[in-house]
Amino acid sequence: RHHHPIAEMLDLPFLPFCVFLGGLGFVCVAFVSAWCQHWRGGFALDGSAQTFNWHPVLMVTGLVVLYGAAALVYRLPPTWSGPKLPWKVLHSVLALAAFGLAVLGLAAVFRFHNDHGTPNMYSLHSWLGLATVLLFSCQWLAGFSTFLLPWAPTWLRALYKPVHIFFGSTILMLSVASCISGINEKLFFSLKNGTTEYKRLPAEAVFANTLGLLILLFGVLVLGALARPSWKRPDADSPDSCQVPALLRGN
Amino acid sequence: RHHHPIAEMLDLPFLPFCVFLGGLGFVCVAFVSAWCQHWRGGFALDGSAQTFNWHPVLMVTGLVVLYGAAALVYRLPPTWSGPKLPWKVLHSVLALAAFGLAVLGLAAVFRFHNDHGTPNMYSLHSWLGLATVLLFSCQWLAGFSTFLLPWAPTWLRALYKPVHIFFGSTILMLSVASCISGINEKLFFSLKNGTTEYKRLPAEAVFANTLGLLILLFGVLVLGALARPSWKRPDADSPDSCQVPALLRGN
Repeated sequence: RHHHPIAEMLDLPFLPFCVFLGGLGFVCVAFVSAWCQHWRGGFALDGSAQTFNWHPVLMVTGLVVLYGAAALVYRLPPTWSGPKLPWKVLHSVLALAAFGLAVLGLAAVFRFHNDHGTPNMYSLHSWLGLATVLLFSCQWLAGFSTFLLPWAPTWLRALYKPVHIFFGSTILMLSVASCISGINEKLFFSLKNGTTEYKRLPAEAVFANTLGLLILLFGVLVLGALARPSWKRPDADSPDSCQVPALLRGN
Repeated sequence: RHHHPIAEMLDLPFLPFCVFLGGLGFVCVAFVSAWCQHWRGGFALDGSAQTFNWHPVLMVTGLVVLYGAAALVYRLPPTWSGPKLPWKVLHSVLALAAFGLAVLGLAAVFRFHNDHGTPNMYSLHSWLGLATVLLFSCQWLAGFSTFLLPWAPTWLRALYKPVHIFFGSTILMLSVASCISGINEKLFFSLKNGTTEYKRLPAEAVFANTLGLLILLFGVLVLGALARPSWKRPDADSPDSCQVPALLRGN
């Protein structure tokens, strides 16, 4: 095949992209940790505001960065040949670790609210965030029972695969939207006095707004990588896995 | 081709989906209008809080519902045959209308802020929202110059098409994240006294949180419809349009 030289120049291999994405994920975790450590008083487990600070760190690390890593496992070329089971286990373990951090992140905010007599689950952020975690738990359980346990018939695996893929991207979008609304909300809560008012845009506000945009960039890059056809398993169209996708595609 | 009967049963035609999506879009616009009319004092153009109320209504109508309609034009089966130009014009006009409403929506909030001495562009919501509108303006201009004006060479159209498609979905995600953070922020601003405190979850909070989830559902359904292979133009793989997509797919 011959392509226009500019098109060839812009074609991007997966691994350098992955290194960049890993760096960006690390920066997101570093930023959210630095925000909580430097401006919000650091970390503790005593039910105080320092207990709350685990919430953003655990959510960004679990529901965004680790989740993104889990989602991209099948984009690694080594996963395309040889036995699939070890990669399924890796995908599943990374997702379970992401889920575990998210549950701890929920525990941190519930503990903080309960110790301060603040009601839980009233803001749109909390509704969206809990919906994200619940959807993630269904996704993990359905994926585990269908693809890892040996009992699901081939037609059911083929039927569920595009649904699992669709919700995989959807849950990441919901995670990112939850992070954005959560950071925005936290800044309105925290920055309300004199020179640190949010609307005066103190250093903390610029830093945390930037964190929000970095999380968004990370999410968009993961979703773009997942959608990019040339980075998908070349055997995705093999008859075995394609019974239903072919139907859904109208091939 | 033979498919499992359950798979056949779950296969969904585009037009009934479209009717449902249109109804959901209408409900989103009705909900945001009802919120502003019933709980936030209605609409005016005098720089008061009623001027601000145009902001959520115009943004939801333009950047979410009309934008979604524009994005789905090429999923209508009638667009798959016959001359493409009228459909390109429709796509472009719907997107321009969406952009126009977004600009008016920005004007409403800037006018309100300026008349009240409130700084502009400090919150994460405002950064994200303005980034969304700026990206949308680039997307529209690049699409218009590449696909509607007659001068772009075929290789450039083929090179830019997957980029335009990717940013089309990305901008909708950013719009939805902007709406979620904006509704969340507005409720914290507005509901702060006694029995109407946000954390006591008064009727307005339940209503506007529900609006947020409906907007999210609308966005996810549009993104899902765009991604669904069987709803894409069957000629998307024709040599004419596929020079670069084929490269990006690694076919």
